[in-house]
Amino acid sequence: MGGGSQQDRRKADATMGEMIFRRSASARVAMIGAGQLARMTHQAAIDLDVDLGVLADSPDDSAVLAGAPWRLGSPNTLADIEAMAANADVVTFDHELIPGEHLAKLEALGHRLNPSPAALALAQDKLKARRVLSARGFPLPEFSPVSSPGEVSEFAEVHGWPVVVKSPSGGYDGRGVHVIENHAQAAALLGGHPAADATWLAEQHVELAAELAILVARTPSGKTAVYPAVQTFQRDGICRYLQIPAELPSATLDEATNVAMSIAEEIGATGILAVEMFVDASGRLLVNELALRPHNSGHITIEACETSQFHQHLRAILDWPLGPTTMRGPAATVNLIGESTGADPSQRLPEALAIPGVHVHLYGKAFRAGRKLGHVTALGRTPGEALGLAQAAAGLLTGS
Amino acid sequence: MGGGSQQDRRKADATMGEMIFRRSASARVAMIGAGQLARMTHQAAIDLDVDLGVLADSPDDSAVLAGAPWRLGSPNTLADIEAMAANADVVTFDHELIPGEHLAKLEALGHRLNPSPAALALAQDKLKARRVLSARGFPLPEFSPVSSPGEVSEFAEVHGWPVVVKSPSGGYDGRGVHVIENHAQAAALLGGHPAADATWLAEQHVELAAELAILVARTPSGKTAVYPAVQTFQRDGICRYLQIPAELPSATLDEATNVAMSIAEEIGATGILAVEMFVDASGRLLVNELALRPHNSGHITIEACETSQFHQHLRAILDWPLGPTTMRGPAATVNLIGESTGADPSQRLPEALAIPGVHVHLYGKAFRAGRKLGHVTALGRTPGEALGLAQAAAGLLTGS
Repeated sequence: MGGGSQQDRRKADATMGEMIFRRSASARVAMIGAGQLARMTHQAAIDLDVDLGVLADSPDDSAVLAGAPWRLGSPNTLADIEAMAANADVVTFDHELIPGEHLAKLEALGHRLNPSPAALALAQDKLKARRVLSARGFPLPEFSPVSSPGEVSEFAEVHGWPVVVKSPSGGYDGRGVHVIENHAQAAALLGGHPAADATWLAEQHVELAAELAILVARTPSGKTAVYPAVQTFQRDGICRYLQIPAELPSATLDEATNVAMSIAEEIGATGILAVEMFVDASGRLLVNELALRPHNSGHITIEACETSQFHQHLRAILDWPLGPTTMRGPAATVNLIGESTGADPSQRLPEALAIPGVHVHLYGKAFRAGRKLGHVTALGRTPGEALGLAQAAAGLLTGS
Repeated sequence: MGGGSQQDRRKADATMGEMIFRRSASARVAMIGAGQLARMTHQAAIDLDVDLGVLADSPDDSAVLAGAPWRLGSPNTLADIEAMAANADVVTFDHELIPGEHLAKLEALGHRLNPSPAALALAQDKLKARRVLSARGFPLPEFSPVSSPGEVSEFAEVHGWPVVVKSPSGGYDGRGVHVIENHAQAAALLGGHPAADATWLAEQHVELAAELAILVARTPSGKTAVYPAVQTFQRDGICRYLQIPAELPSATLDEATNVAMSIAEEIGATGILAVEMFVDASGRLLVNELALRPHNSGHITIEACETSQFHQHLRAILDWPLGPTTMRGPAATVNLIGESTGADPSQRLPEALAIPGVHVHLYGKAFRAGRKLGHVTALGRTPGEALGLAQAAAGLLTGS
């Protein structure tokens, strides 16, 4: 036996220069993007002997560090996406930041994309999503496209200040979302942008009583499975923690579940669809955003549900039977977000593991303040008890 | 971005030719061997941002296919083991088949080995284990070293035929274990071997009422955690399925747990120690074999206990706090063993996944009759219900 390090069996095994998938795997999935969603999908793929190849921006991407087979490339470069999709049974996505024309091209070339470009477009373009969901009668905040400060003020005349002004694409974790209090702020935000490539989404500012997310898995052949509603808690537009069961009236949860299931059908979602929703001060349910991939709110399913969202996503996109979504018990998940203290969770594990029953998931990402570095889930007799454990561990890990 | 496939970030990152570990990981563990135990330990290592480097016999080894950082090399070659151990915080083991002199050398060089060579020797040499455990008063079947057919017959005169004659080392899954009915068979087995390098272990043949395994995790600083007793069911020396809780008298289970905890202390085990035990026809508990690593009987802990044996092994060998071992509910695990039908479980997943609530774990190994290719775990209201589900899925996967 030689001692050379890091020989790669996949390279030796390949019959084509571009092939990174094993023929003997149970299935071959190409995922565009290699962040923590890809990382945790890779963990699930190992169970099922699925080869999950990931298109990575960098060799330090979270899923690459976890050992997923990978190619270096950009989601903005069609050739990179095509090379990744070669020999894959299905193409799927770690994020939405892929040009629509590339997706259309891939589909035209005969690749199986789950979700489809048409469905994914609703996660890529918030204005488009609003229009489609509104046309089909789903409950939404009032909204309007705006492209000038004057249009924001006109919207405010009808629906009142403040107005939420969003960039239709590219935003996540609160980025690209602005709460505009008056015409001067609208002018400051929109003034510099020529109207042509700057259609913004203006939305009624909703007084939130609660936020929740419903995860639905749907297969190409139309089988669905829905998870228990997850209640999410945001600060500065970033989800800080979440719990199941959601502590909201059962009528609200039933309605939320029905809405999410209907959306999955209407848009032909495949894989995991996450529907983020608001409950306003009067108890009214409003759809916020869609994600067509495993979702931060679904990390809790790893320990708290019978089938994790990552296994379920693979099963759904491969058109395999879906697993049960039953809750094992009350649970809470706290996101580990880099604090200004500079505390790196990777170097602070032992203290946190001393708290009984906490499940720490680190993403292997270099520390940066404000960055999602991992999450902690705990189960408990109540969501509150679980949250107490998870928050204690998260506090030790981030030094907050 | 370039499109070259399979660049390895670890190679680019390395400051030494031999280094495959990231400095930014929460810990660096070298595992000798890259089979399914290493594969599942790698899955757990991802959660904890631990780099688990594996020494692999082949690029097709189970853990290599799951993406663990790896080196090609033999456990019989000291230089290969040394290269693997370089820059690791701890060295641990996927199997016992490593020459004792290599382990002693590694320890002398200052590497941290968990388990220690002295403890691991008890899994490597069944005769040594019998002597050590017997000297400390643990309940064992009657045994004696034998090196000639005559000595087998002498043993039989005291303890009766048949006699179980075992190769002291290298055997697993029933290999190297012989049930000898009479002197002629003893002569056939031992006759060809000169006495010098052929000391065999003769054991009283025990009428088995049940078999069980107790898993104990122990840290170098002496903290321990014990799992609920697992009841195991063998055929032809290979474990076919297992369940928790064990359906045996609570006094027997308490005694088994106490025995396993005492053995862990007495031998200074670190990491997971699995103690395999018999219950004989009169209800007496007897220690069979020891394994100092994650164990087949512990695969059930992935879904059925609060902390999986793979997470626990990492926590134990790194001297981190241990996790709770609480049972989530009754469960059963069925091993997927290649059948003469030639059915490859990797190609038969969808049918099996249609059975609700089964958790399939495939090892990525090429099909061979008699080979352990994976396992299936199910939870149920009773172990019997769980077993029914897991067996149904296993039957579909192996075509049995």
